[in-house]
Amino acid sequence: MAWSRTLVDGRPADSIDIADRGLLYGDGLFETIAVRNRRPCLWRRHLARLAMGCERLGIPKPDTSLLATEASTLLDDADAPAGVLKLMVTRGSGPRGYAPPLAPRPRRILSFQPGLLPGPFPVLPDLRQGADADVRLTICATRLGANERLAGIKHLNRLEQVLGRAEWSDPEILDGIMCDTRRHAICGTMSNIYVLDETGICTPPLVHCGVAGTVRGLVQDCATALDIPFRERELKLSDLYAADGLMISNALLGLLPVGRLREHRYRAGAAPAALIDRVRATALEPETHL
Amino acid sequence: MAWSRTLVDGRPADSIDIADRGLLYGDGLFETIAVRNRRPCLWRRHLARLAMGCERLGIPKPDTSLLATEASTLLDDADAPAGVLKLMVTRGSGPRGYAPPLAPRPRRILSFQPGLLPGPFPVLPDLRQGADADVRLTICATRLGANERLAGIKHLNRLEQVLGRAEWSDPEILDGIMCDTRRHAICGTMSNIYVLDETGICTPPLVHCGVAGTVRGLVQDCATALDIPFRERELKLSDLYAADGLMISNALLGLLPVGRLREHRYRAGAAPAALIDRVRATALEPETHL
Repeated sequence: MAWSRTLVDGRPADSIDIADRGLLYGDGLFETIAVRNRRPCLWRRHLARLAMGCERLGIPKPDTSLLATEASTLLDDADAPAGVLKLMVTRGSGPRGYAPPLAPRPRRILSFQPGLLPGPFPVLPDLRQGADADVRLTICATRLGANERLAGIKHLNRLEQVLGRAEWSDPEILDGIMCDTRRHAICGTMSNIYVLDETGICTPPLVHCGVAGTVRGLVQDCATALDIPFRERELKLSDLYAADGLMISNALLGLLPVGRLREHRYRAGAAPAALIDRVRATALEPETHL
Repeated sequence: MAWSRTLVDGRPADSIDIADRGLLYGDGLFETIAVRNRRPCLWRRHLARLAMGCERLGIPKPDTSLLATEASTLLDDADAPAGVLKLMVTRGSGPRGYAPPLAPRPRRILSFQPGLLPGPFPVLPDLRQGADADVRLTICATRLGANERLAGIKHLNRLEQVLGRAEWSDPEILDGIMCDTRRHAICGTMSNIYVLDETGICTPPLVHCGVAGTVRGLVQDCATALDIPFRERELKLSDLYAADGLMISNALLGLLPVGRLREHRYRAGAAPAALIDRVRATALEPETHL
């Protein structure tokens, strides 16, 4: 379950400076990236979201080619060709206090965990089963606070997700839906959500909270390519129950139809198989040129 | 400006495991503690808030006597008798994913920074000047998101404060008022706030956001002892401007009258000197028995 190898600013390391602002304040960003054939998947989308996060937080954007070189170094030497690459960028070390250093030296942390997706839920095997997988979701009581400046980006302030994920221990449950303070469904603790209805595919806007997943953008692009209407719409929990189908996505899962939301069962086959296949093929296609 | 010495789980260290959940998710808590005569001030109040935070986050509470021993070890060997003690408790290292480990091993991190309060604003010298110090505040555009489960405790998810603090660079400005999404004033980036009016002292409730400062509790106790009415009340920015006086507090500042909020000046002497003196004497009185 441990990270097999980590590079901090390009050098092998298993620890980080105690004054790193990522630790002190969660002052940084991260990406969780699927790896196949020793190459990261959706690399460009991950880097684009990371860049957006850096821009939003005022953290100087790390050099893209440097990140690519470090990822290649890490994955070329890895124990296994497939697994999870975690890429973190923090504002680096600094003096005491919230004020960001005037000349920050951001820190790059790349870690690789070999194997398919470890953990209680055997996700990648399910991916192979495709739409037949019985994905079960719960609903979290923990709410997402609203902050326009932090919405959409994948920053390191993740206590809401930690508290949400701590609400269930049943290993059969893959994720939990989180609502904002207005009781609108926003996302899972680790996924984006989509409802299927007569109008097509709807996903919640992420203006006030939530993370704009890399696969969320891919789902939109694939839906467009397949002429499936895709739009953002505010969703209540009752909309989730009333929908023909529900899907979730993240960078390790791809796009998956949900079988059950708590005790509610969705009918099989509601999710468009062509979309799911197309997203999966792209989301799990390693990028050969970084 | 650097931390002179750090103990991680009781041992000297200047780095922390890359898999610590404090870094990965901000999954932990901290206390910023004034130190005089090699002893921490308001130690019991800091430990009480830390315990409340552990309870709220489901992190096993570190042993109090162990923390006291480690603080004594650190401060006895410190380069200077006065400074700032930072105490962090994280959920410790864990496998990938938001789910908290079933058997977490929380990590204790104690760092000492010698000297008076370093940084752009010479805070402790001002304390000596007492009510004559011209404390200037601004108002932050960054809002505080609402989350009842995180309100009041001093957790490591502090990006809102970082973004708020990044809004001004004028070293003459001590702090910035932060509002919630309903435009109620909640606190400064690093302080609690109090208005003075004909009814006494009012401070915002911290049910949805904000940190319940150790000195905030002390202000309440001292006000009660001095027969000064003290209550929680929702405050708009207009209430701050309309008030007879405004005060801020934190563990390093004690309680200070505010001279100016943006361009608005408060009349000198509005803040009750007896209260300020009493709070300062207690907040900066080292606890000899840990």
